[in-house]
Amino acid sequence: MSVKGQTPASHSLPLTESNSQITPTNHTDDDWNMEGDTLHEECGVFGIYKTPDAAALTALGLHALQHRGQEAAGIATYDGEHFHLERRFGLVGDNFSNAHTLERLPGTASIGHNRYSTAGGAALRNIQPLFAELEGGGIAVAHNGQFTNAMTLRKSLIKRGAIFQSTSDSEVVSQLIAKSRESNIVDRFIDAIRQMEGGYALIALTRKKLIGARDPIGIRPLVLGDLNGSPVLASETCALDMIGAKFVRDIKNGEVVVCTDEGVESYHPFPDVPARLDIFEYIYFSRPDSVFDGRSVYDVRKALGRELAKELPLDVDVVVPVPDSGVPAALGYAQGVGIPFELGIVRNHYVGRTFIEPTQQIRALGVRLKHSANRSQVEGKRIVLVDDSLVRGTTSSKIVQMMRDAGATEVHMLLASPPITHSDYYGIDTPDRANLLAAQYDLEGMRKYIGADSLGFISLDGVYRACGYAKRNNKSPQFTDHCFTGDYPTALVDIEGAEDHRAGGLLKE
Amino acid sequence: MSVKGQTPASHSLPLTESNSQITPTNHTDDDWNMEGDTLHEECGVFGIYKTPDAAALTALGLHALQHRGQEAAGIATYDGEHFHLERRFGLVGDNFSNAHTLERLPGTASIGHNRYSTAGGAALRNIQPLFAELEGGGIAVAHNGQFTNAMTLRKSLIKRGAIFQSTSDSEVVSQLIAKSRESNIVDRFIDAIRQMEGGYALIALTRKKLIGARDPIGIRPLVLGDLNGSPVLASETCALDMIGAKFVRDIKNGEVVVCTDEGVESYHPFPDVPARLDIFEYIYFSRPDSVFDGRSVYDVRKALGRELAKELPLDVDVVVPVPDSGVPAALGYAQGVGIPFELGIVRNHYVGRTFIEPTQQIRALGVRLKHSANRSQVEGKRIVLVDDSLVRGTTSSKIVQMMRDAGATEVHMLLASPPITHSDYYGIDTPDRANLLAAQYDLEGMRKYIGADSLGFISLDGVYRACGYAKRNNKSPQFTDHCFTGDYPTALVDIEGAEDHRAGGLLKE
Amino acid sequence: MSVKGQTPASHSLPLTESNSQITPTNHTDDDWNMEGDTLHEECGVFGIYKTPDAAALTALGLHALQHRGQEAAGIATYDGEHFHLERRFGLVGDNFSNAHTLERLPGTASIGHNRYSTAGGAALRNIQPLFAELEGGGIAVAHNGQFTNAMTLRKSLIKRGAIFQSTSDSEVVSQLIAKSRESNIVDRFIDAIRQMEGGYALIALTRKKLIGARDPIGIRPLVLGDLNGSPVLASETCALDMIGAKFVRDIKNGEVVVCTDEGVESYHPFPDVPARLDIFEYIYFSRPDSVFDGRSVYDVRKALGRELAKELPLDVDVVVPVPDSGVPAALGYAQGVGIPFELGIVRNHYVGRTFIEPTQQIRALGVRLKHSANRSQVEGKRIVLVDDSLVRGTTSSKIVQMMRDAGATEVHMLLASPPITHSDYYGIDTPDRANLLAAQYDLEGMRKYIGADSLGFISLDGVYRACGYAKRNNKSPQFTDHCFTGDYPTALVDIEGAEDHRAGGLLKE
Amino acid sequence: MSVKGQTPASHSLPLTESNSQITPTNHTDDDWNMEGDTLHEECGVFGIYKTPDAAALTALGLHALQHRGQEAAGIATYDGEHFHLERRFGLVGDNFSNAHTLERLPGTASIGHNRYSTAGGAALRNIQPLFAELEGGGIAVAHNGQFTNAMTLRKSLIKRGAIFQSTSDSEVVSQLIAKSRESNIVDRFIDAIRQMEGGYALIALTRKKLIGARDPIGIRPLVLGDLNGSPVLASETCALDMIGAKFVRDIKNGEVVVCTDEGVESYHPFPDVPARLDIFEYIYFSRPDSVFDGRSVYDVRKALGRELAKELPLDVDVVVPVPDSGVPAALGYAQGVGIPFELGIVRNHYVGRTFIEPTQQIRALGVRLKHSANRSQVEGKRIVLVDDSLVRGTTSSKIVQMMRDAGATEVHMLLASPPITHSDYYGIDTPDRANLLAAQYDLEGMRKYIGADSLGFISLDGVYRACGYAKRNNKSPQFTDHCFTGDYPTALVDIEGAEDHRAGGLLKE
Repeated sequence: MSVKGQTPASHSLPLTESNSQITPTNHTDDDWNMEGDTLHEECGVFGIYKTPDAAALTALGLHALQHRGQEAAGIATYDGEHFHLERRFGLVGDNFSNAHTLERLPGTASIGHNRYSTAGGAALRNIQPLFAELEGGGIAVAHNGQFTNAMTLRKSLIKRGAIFQSTSDSEVVSQLIAKSRESNIVDRFIDAIRQMEGGYALIALTRKKLIGARDPIGIRPLVLGDLNGSPVLASETCALDMIGAKFVRDIKNGEVVVCTDEGVESYHPFPDVPARLDIFEYIYFSRPDSVFDGRSVYDVRKALGRELAKELPLDVDVVVPVPDSGVPAALGYAQGVGIPFELGIVRNHYVGRTFIEPTQQIRALGVRLKHSANRSQVEGKRIVLVDDSLVRGTTSSKIVQMMRDAGATEVHMLLASPPITHSDYYGIDTPDRANLLAAQYDLEGMRKYIGADSLGFISLDGVYRACGYAKRNNKSPQFTDHCFTGDYPTALVDIEGAEDHRAGGLLKE
Repeated sequence: MSVKGQTPASHSLPLTESNSQITPTNHTDDDWNMEGDTLHEECGVFGIYKTPDAAALTALGLHALQHRGQEAAGIATYDGEHFHLERRFGLVGDNFSNAHTLERLPGTASIGHNRYSTAGGAALRNIQPLFAELEGGGIAVAHNGQFTNAMTLRKSLIKRGAIFQSTSDSEVVSQLIAKSRESNIVDRFIDAIRQMEGGYALIALTRKKLIGARDPIGIRPLVLGDLNGSPVLASETCALDMIGAKFVRDIKNGEVVVCTDEGVESYHPFPDVPARLDIFEYIYFSRPDSVFDGRSVYDVRKALGRELAKELPLDVDVVVPVPDSGVPAALGYAQGVGIPFELGIVRNHYVGRTFIEPTQQIRALGVRLKHSANRSQVEGKRIVLVDDSLVRGTTSSKIVQMMRDAGATEVHMLLASPPITHSDYYGIDTPDRANLLAAQYDLEGMRKYIGADSLGFISLDGVYRACGYAKRNNKSPQFTDHCFTGDYPTALVDIEGAEDHRAGGLLKE
Repeated sequence: MSVKGQTPASHSLPLTESNSQITPTNHTDDDWNMEGDTLHEECGVFGIYKTPDAAALTALGLHALQHRGQEAAGIATYDGEHFHLERRFGLVGDNFSNAHTLERLPGTASIGHNRYSTAGGAALRNIQPLFAELEGGGIAVAHNGQFTNAMTLRKSLIKRGAIFQSTSDSEVVSQLIAKSRESNIVDRFIDAIRQMEGGYALIALTRKKLIGARDPIGIRPLVLGDLNGSPVLASETCALDMIGAKFVRDIKNGEVVVCTDEGVESYHPFPDVPARLDIFEYIYFSRPDSVFDGRSVYDVRKALGRELAKELPLDVDVVVPVPDSGVPAALGYAQGVGIPFELGIVRNHYVGRTFIEPTQQIRALGVRLKHSANRSQVEGKRIVLVDDSLVRGTTSSKIVQMMRDAGATEVHMLLASPPITHSDYYGIDTPDRANLLAAQYDLEGMRKYIGADSLGFISLDGVYRACGYAKRNNKSPQFTDHCFTGDYPTALVDIEGAEDHRAGGLLKE
Repeated sequence: MSVKGQTPASHSLPLTESNSQITPTNHTDDDWNMEGDTLHEECGVFGIYKTPDAAALTALGLHALQHRGQEAAGIATYDGEHFHLERRFGLVGDNFSNAHTLERLPGTASIGHNRYSTAGGAALRNIQPLFAELEGGGIAVAHNGQFTNAMTLRKSLIKRGAIFQSTSDSEVVSQLIAKSRESNIVDRFIDAIRQMEGGYALIALTRKKLIGARDPIGIRPLVLGDLNGSPVLASETCALDMIGAKFVRDIKNGEVVVCTDEGVESYHPFPDVPARLDIFEYIYFSRPDSVFDGRSVYDVRKALGRELAKELPLDVDVVVPVPDSGVPAALGYAQGVGIPFELGIVRNHYVGRTFIEPTQQIRALGVRLKHSANRSQVEGKRIVLVDDSLVRGTTSSKIVQMMRDAGATEVHMLLASPPITHSDYYGIDTPDRANLLAAQYDLEGMRKYIGADSLGFISLDGVYRACGYAKRNNKSPQFTDHCFTGDYPTALVDIEGAEDHRAGGLLKE
């Protein structure tokens, strides 16, 4: 299935509102802070059922998942009588590590969510989890990923009189649950997700249940753990490790798990199809110490480096990783080719995402806030830079130049993923296709753009080999890899059907 | 129609949420700050259509209406393309007087709202106006007053799958508008208010219209003004004076006015019944310089004092008003009986509503933060205190004691309203009936409670005489006066029908 | 002694600093909020020695003195081991009424201070009390009033190597105490104030003493009270009433009182001269329920109105006070001439001092945020406005116009004080002499400026008569009254000697 | 010279003050966040003279030096007329990257300072730079390091009547400058530092000069750069790289440089002795891409690893760095012994220093917020952990256990510095000697404490070899290394002379 290339119409309501005294960090995706040149997962989710300190454990789980979203976080709990919800802009460690906030989140069941900045707007009301009062009980919902028909469903619901409180896709799920004719909450939940398409991991908390669901194809990950008998759901295994929970198993594609006092039950409301985890979970997003389907993320990344070493062995003096995401692949490459691995670039971790408003005068200096050349390792040397992926190329071109300025005699660049030619619609914040370097240039064009002496990418089959397969099974690919192939695993209703839906009759004034 | 006496079940959702970094002033209704011993209007509304600086003018209008609600305020505007909404805890003058906030509220049409603290909870999402996206257009809604069937309608809407974003009654109106099958916005608005009962002034802003509506009986006031051709709607005339607008007329009971580019149109969707303004608008709530139905509030209050002078002339040395609300009646009384009017009590205006967390040690001192005795006017004198009304009696008993401590030889007390024996359900925050002094004691019991040498109330007919009538028309009373009479002018669905609605089947888990 | 008319050179250091996250309310002294057209006391002081809840009692005392300064407040305590200091922008009731802040102020001895905005700048470090560590012990100091040689002393101290932490005059006292060669703290304190000139009430807290001092002439007031055996010092008696303390006596001019565990000792380090309290304490500053030298402030104000009635009886329909400060004089006038007193102007107390940044567009409307006409009392009537004093005339001219707009047929204006022709240098924030209306115009010119039909001032002797004297004793005036007479009771070193001091050699760079 | 071991008496004044609305991050130095188990530099300094955007460039320089202090930062500028000073808690990138703050810092000359949390207390008034008004001109001062006689000088100054505004050592410098009898500012500055002892880099800004000084022995570093002709001073070369300035030279030990419009002048007011840079600048503090005396910090760290490989080659499967500080030494070690280098520990950079208030319940879980095991690299393997230094040993023991829990069959530990047996008094925040692991245990005792299979330290001479020397010159050591040797290069007046100074006569009360 191919994609027409248009971007989905904005989800934003014709309303702007700023919340009193709240100053969310505004991430400007420009070259300055180079945000725009990396991929961003939109979210991480965590849930735990029936344990003391549920909110504190959720905060720790979210802290372990902080790399999946730094803009905001929220935690919902149920204490047997009331639901409690706290949502904050900023890091989990800044907002949910104090007793004061945790005291506002009593209860033994809890779900939580980390959010990366989304286009919809940085308003408090958009931070997940979202809460909805149903007839006879409440439900809190949060998800990682994206629904490809959310906008279409949203319009249809508004036409039928629904009032949305947020611009979050999660609320479409809540509204569908609220409007379902089913008589119990699990059936309502399944009724709702059957109407949704996309890639997601979804968690929900009701008065008596913790529910988790993974999209039919398994694009976004979700794992099940166990803490002294209490079930735990999390986007990655590193969150289980953080709280000392045992890993139980990956939730299957299309599976719905319902945790109650009686234990964990599974539902399989979707047709049985092979799973296709998003390959970028291995390449870039997940934490290196996480494990999916028995594969260590760190091992896959090193293996990508080793495959690169086989495919593109270079004669250089030093292998320099682009920190931090390029480190494991660079190590694998260096070991593969037998050339020294050196930290030729120093990363400043204090910048976080915080240099939010550079003045024009500073901007003009072209200085680098996150990366500095470590001249002693670079000067007079032939180096190869190893990074995980190439998106817009703006950061790479600056880093190549920085290496030359520091005295490198040759600067080569290798990427541990194939050229990214297609945008994502399953929760990864990719630029418009028009801004993807590989969608604009051929290999030589890209090389010129970033200014390297040579440029190389791992092959698509190389990626599959690093994951233990002989090659990509083109009939039934083992992973979701549309960013390299254009092979989108689901319909893209909001994009492809946009014209039709816009034709709907408007309310007359 | 009599009332069963139960209080409505709480509107609060089974959800608690605190908004990041927001610390609303928590008004504790206890004896300490004496909040609990006065009546409170819940709101003031203001709207203006097609004028430059619409938000700034709305801020000024709300400032003039600040006495109707000090907890929070909100302003919504429409700029021809987007709606903008800003809501803040605190005074209008603290939050909406700066260029920074006003710049976030562009547009030539605007509505605004002042809120007094409501039981439902001090959450940002509860501050009005509320915004709803309808199919093809948005609507912002705010109201002053209370709907007596809001909870019942709310439950019914939730049963049908509506998700509420707030606990505000205004949202019931929005949800009804959103779900209406009518094809244009005015019909939808009328469809919605036809389902509502209660006492209210309602304003709404759509892309092309400013809409105002007053409840069928006219319990809550709403006036129409004109600022250089731009229509203005406000709770009181003092808001028109503030912005230099001309007073046009009172909106009629049951009238809906729709302001568009073509002018102001009127609709009368309710049966034609005689108006019954809430008599407390004259006695206590409205600003003395406001005018309703041609009667100056200040004049009515002075006339109440003069009637008191006829009904209960006392032989004392000084007439002392309880500031500030008792001043006009005390002046009228002093002029009527020919006894000097003196400021025997000094009010500290700086306390505002801000002494929020008195420590127990201070509380134990029994000090008075708002009122102090002016000993030189009181010592060795026989005084009469004149106040507007007697609610719980806690403040009055302290003030009487303060006068005795300052050396008064006799302390009498007169009230410019009859005994309050019944709670209100139309937007006045009265205590439970059980806490109303006049519902617990007879006159002598009340006198003992407050510790005065004598206690007197104006008669019910005296109130009507002060308003220019010979007496109350018991067949068709000229005012809403249930607080004195128990004669509620509408059905009280939420209270009287509560049992039935609670029986509804809950969602199974 | 006459004054040359120049204003003192600014005290501000060549340093600007904003404190993180602190947004002091910026009072713009312009016509808009009419701040510039009233007089402002700069401060109120309070201290209590050896009592439980010392900080809480100080907070209450400062609350009672809030009218003397609303910009900021501070409280210092000593707990037997450490001094504690909390300083905040804003009202006492907003900042010192919560348990959290009071818990940071443990101890049984405490002093506090209210500040009105001073020219020096709204920086946290300028809020009093100020703390200084002396050899072997600390001292906290605060004062009400102004030192007329503070700038001169400050320059001299800097020349000798002192480093100032604030631009507050109080710090000159601290520095002089720190540098004194005397061996005990009381002698050092006296050594310091002997070098100071001006009008002040000064309080200080050391590890074992609460010290109070009043300037040699007694320009600024200070009273002594007793709360169950604990001595209390306060600017006015109303602060004693607030906490239930007994009034003991006025501190004498030039007296230093030292409260220790042994009791209250008096020192008289200055020559014995007759006291001259600032007459404006009666006319405008102090709270009406305060008492100085046995005279009730309210009584004096009413007496000023009665004297006005004798001097300038007018044939009008209504006497209208300019609220709130003109009320007692208007009452006295109305009683004196036998004409009805009516609230023809309504004051909006919610504005406080908070409409800080009016946008230009609103400003242009000329609306009135604090005062509104009460049309029903004014329309078609001949009225006389009674106010306490006339400073720049800007407010008066607007109020006169407002009365005319509301339909008054004649608008006369009477002032309960003589024309203000001279600036103050003892703690009253008067405009430059050039901006004083009475320094620019004769009576007819002033009348024209404010637009009244007639304008009248009480005579100087009338003021003295209202205070119980036959007339002003010109040889030894009973009050400080330079604002009317130019008769400054002390040298004005900073002003008169400014040129000389500027000539001092500067440090070479 | 040996040290008696007592800690200096606290510098804190007998005053506590919290600043309004400021909530500094409280770093609790306990095992939980493992802060207490690393060394901390107290500060970084930066200055630039005569350039547009001086404050913005200073902010960038401080950002590059953020690793030297994260608690607070301050910038002072001079605009030709006024000094401006902004000080904030938190990261430079969070506070000084926005136009709003930079606009408050106009001028072409600027100095700035990063602070690590100091014992003295997190009060705004303690953040550097500090400003002092001298006779005829102001001076802003900031320093990195510590004065070993600051407390003694402070007491003496207070005895002479000085009032300190902060508890910062920098203020002693200001006070000495203010009190100096010299007639020009450079002489006064030199007069002041001649009275100070310790290890420091000091920068000052006057109306016409940027001044820098390095302590007589050169314990703390300071470098000179050039940005298009404008001189730049910074703690490390990485700050020059950040703004694109050229490195000119290291400031010499005991050198004072004065930058004016005429250029850069040098003064040498101290006896000429050999420089002894603190060896910890190489081992731990400085950024790996910084260069001192021609030696790259990264190169030294790798060389330490290579020396370790020579001294202590182990037979293991994997070399695992303790991130981030142990990475270069681990790389050097791995290359030296020819064993694979793998990231067996994942560091979570989002925690920053922000998990400030862990609840007891979470704390009890023993989870790790900063480090996680990367099980795939550790399980079933014999590993050696390489870290830069061992302080208390608490972190190391947890990391060793974490490795065992992840399945390591052997866990060895090597340190790239000798045992730390003595506390620092030159600006490094070391624990009391009693808490240094190497001061309590012998090698076997330490090994048992951290639970490793073996434990090894580089030799002292090994450190000197890594820096290019054959060995330590014990007669005249090339570096300051008292933490390993107890050989303090200066007198420690505050500690050794404390008793005498305490005997000074206290002020009598």
